[in-house]
Amino acid sequence: MKKSLPACLVLLTLATASYAQLSSLRVNQQRISQRLQELAAIGAQPGGAGRVGYSKADREGRAYFMGLMKNAGLAVTIDYAGNIIGRRAGKNSALKPIGFGSHIDTVPNGGNYDGTVGSISGLEVIEMLNENKIVTEHPLELIIFANEEGGTVGSGAMIGKVKPAVLASVTQSGLTTADGIRAIGGNPDSLQRMVREKGDLAAFVELHIEQGGILEAENRQIGVVEGIVGIEDWEVTIEGMPNHAGTTPMNRRRDAMLAAARLTVALNDVITSREGRQVGTVGKIAVEPGAYNVIPGKVVLGMEIRDLNYDKIWTLFREVEARAAAIAKASGTTITFRQPFAPVTPALTAKPIQDLIIRAASGLGLSYRMMQSGAGHDSQEISHIAPVGMIFIPSVGGISHSPNEFSKPVDIANGANVLLHTVLALDSRK
Amino acid sequence: MKKSLPACLVLLTLATASYAQLSSLRVNQQRISQRLQELAAIGAQPGGAGRVGYSKADREGRAYFMGLMKNAGLAVTIDYAGNIIGRRAGKNSALKPIGFGSHIDTVPNGGNYDGTVGSISGLEVIEMLNENKIVTEHPLELIIFANEEGGTVGSGAMIGKVKPAVLASVTQSGLTTADGIRAIGGNPDSLQRMVREKGDLAAFVELHIEQGGILEAENRQIGVVEGIVGIEDWEVTIEGMPNHAGTTPMNRRRDAMLAAARLTVALNDVITSREGRQVGTVGKIAVEPGAYNVIPGKVVLGMEIRDLNYDKIWTLFREVEARAAAIAKASGTTITFRQPFAPVTPALTAKPIQDLIIRAASGLGLSYRMMQSGAGHDSQEISHIAPVGMIFIPSVGGISHSPNEFSKPVDIANGANVLLHTVLALDSRK
Repeated sequence: MKKSLPACLVLLTLATASYAQLSSLRVNQQRISQRLQELAAIGAQPGGAGRVGYSKADREGRAYFMGLMKNAGLAVTIDYAGNIIGRRAGKNSALKPIGFGSHIDTVPNGGNYDGTVGSISGLEVIEMLNENKIVTEHPLELIIFANEEGGTVGSGAMIGKVKPAVLASVTQSGLTTADGIRAIGGNPDSLQRMVREKGDLAAFVELHIEQGGILEAENRQIGVVEGIVGIEDWEVTIEGMPNHAGTTPMNRRRDAMLAAARLTVALNDVITSREGRQVGTVGKIAVEPGAYNVIPGKVVLGMEIRDLNYDKIWTLFREVEARAAAIAKASGTTITFRQPFAPVTPALTAKPIQDLIIRAASGLGLSYRMMQSGAGHDSQEISHIAPVGMIFIPSVGGISHSPNEFSKPVDIANGANVLLHTVLALDSRK
Repeated sequence: MKKSLPACLVLLTLATASYAQLSSLRVNQQRISQRLQELAAIGAQPGGAGRVGYSKADREGRAYFMGLMKNAGLAVTIDYAGNIIGRRAGKNSALKPIGFGSHIDTVPNGGNYDGTVGSISGLEVIEMLNENKIVTEHPLELIIFANEEGGTVGSGAMIGKVKPAVLASVTQSGLTTADGIRAIGGNPDSLQRMVREKGDLAAFVELHIEQGGILEAENRQIGVVEGIVGIEDWEVTIEGMPNHAGTTPMNRRRDAMLAAARLTVALNDVITSREGRQVGTVGKIAVEPGAYNVIPGKVVLGMEIRDLNYDKIWTLFREVEARAAAIAKASGTTITFRQPFAPVTPALTAKPIQDLIIRAASGLGLSYRMMQSGAGHDSQEISHIAPVGMIFIPSVGGISHSPNEFSKPVDIANGANVLLHTVLALDSRK
């Protein structure tokens, strides 16, 4: 039989494996590609992936994945939030487990790489250990977090931050979060009992597609993530005076749309006038009354600033606020800012794990660059209870959350190899 | 009886009336105010006027007004477009009639002065002639145009420009234009039979509220309208690339919203960088996909330019177009312009009638200024078949098409007196 069960342990252990034996390990690119294809077929829709968290397709995808995990000899459990946890025993049960993994749910009409690359590559790490009859010192946990795209619900529950309002809210699946958790085998009433404490995991490593175009543009194979940016959103209300667009001279207008346009340009000026990787976006706009022949009296903008440095987000916002005050004064409008969501604070990855990722990439002959993650990830939540590391691989065209999302098989295999060797290095640390 | 029928003619005629007698005529401010109130009560809604063209309230308002016209001895007819025409015979039936009037329909949730001031003041001219037993040389026509707010439908029909598409389109009343015309006593199948030729009217004069704030701001009592501006509208489509607002660096974006904002500012710069009374407005905007965390991939703007000089509109647009090309190039977007509506060409008023309005205002001791009409009016249509004049009175706060629309009784009376004396002067021209 080809299956290698962890019960038939220990012909070779990390302690006894030679450096040459370990360092020559390479993942099975073909197997990863095949499994990505099989998972993509579940919930496939004309034009994209449709395994929205808690949906029927999500449940089918989870069943498929749990089957693979069990075949790989993992002890599979579902926690109260519906996270899938596959355990593999280590030699030293006194050590805290090393975790790795990602998620397999998708956005509506999404792609086949976001989350699944890290999940299937995590399983590939287990397969490699099995095939090479390696038992790690630490226990290992392959974690597939539930409903990441719905707001990192599974990983959030693991650190105890899922609020009753979230449980009551209706998700993209049509179910409330609470009913969704029940539908995937969890129990929303017991979330407090699953909360992990700081130190419960020795480390957590996540491989993920970049979801941006930097690696591709700079022709680098691996991104070593320094941290996941913080996010602040503002709903900006600009109020002027609606009036007849024919009879109101230019110098008598209080044009909310013109003020909104100036503010949009000002945000871009503030963000781009400084060194750094901060980003600022106006992604939404609504105008009232909204007719060709009426000067807009009211505009509501959706504005966002992200950076790895939380103080910098606020320094930039204060500049935008000052520019807004000047624009309001000059245009006879009022501009007010309201924050509709709880802030997302930046999450830094652990420097020692960054170093191990760099060493792993270098050992594999792969080019790399340090970078930040502009998008949120489960690792962001887990960073509150464990040192985390994140590995990025290139996204073709920088596209994500789209049916056109794509990463090359060789890039995925590179990432999986870096994940494998990072986990091995974490395990062998004194 | 107080009614003075035109049949009981001619104790005094214009020819025989003394200059002093005529020049001392003043309208009855009290009567005008009372009739404005009575008309406002018809279709009144919480917060505003609701006599949308062809609606039940519009029909009730028309019935009320036709009652007043008949009481004033006018021979009232409804033409095929539903325009109400009240004729008063003149001494010389070989002369073409002098027309005056406006409209009594409103926008949804509109005000009580737009159109009604000119209509009731037109009737007041008739009342004054009756009370003073004056018979003009020319026949007179008090014309109340149908469905002005729906796109000058009644006056458009009078010059033969209402297209089948307009007749088939559904109006704010819920009826198609064709059914609406039937509902007010017209016949949409016979519109071609009512078209008037150039010269069928000796002149047409319309009194109207300014719908802007210039007269009030400059403390002038009368606006002498030089012309009604032309209007060009553009639907502007800006296409960039939707992308993740967190993972896409500022220098890799093709942000349709930022380009739209720059274009909105550029329009304002182009319009305000030149001398003149041109106006330019972005009144509409829609963004896709429209989320805090997604860089907009597509924006559609509604843009308008108005001026009394049609060539100038296009000169300004060409500048905007050049600015748009530069913005598109710098931002990696495409910007395309489409014209969703037929252009509205400027309509100049007749210089001799402007002069008579100035003389009438001066004779009454009223201050005046020359101005353009930024809004469209029935006079704009009628200018194609007759020399027209327009008299403006102040709008408090420059507000119109709103329940807050207001003009002071004394200002209305001033306007009605200028209308009366302009009509008398037109009649006495050789």
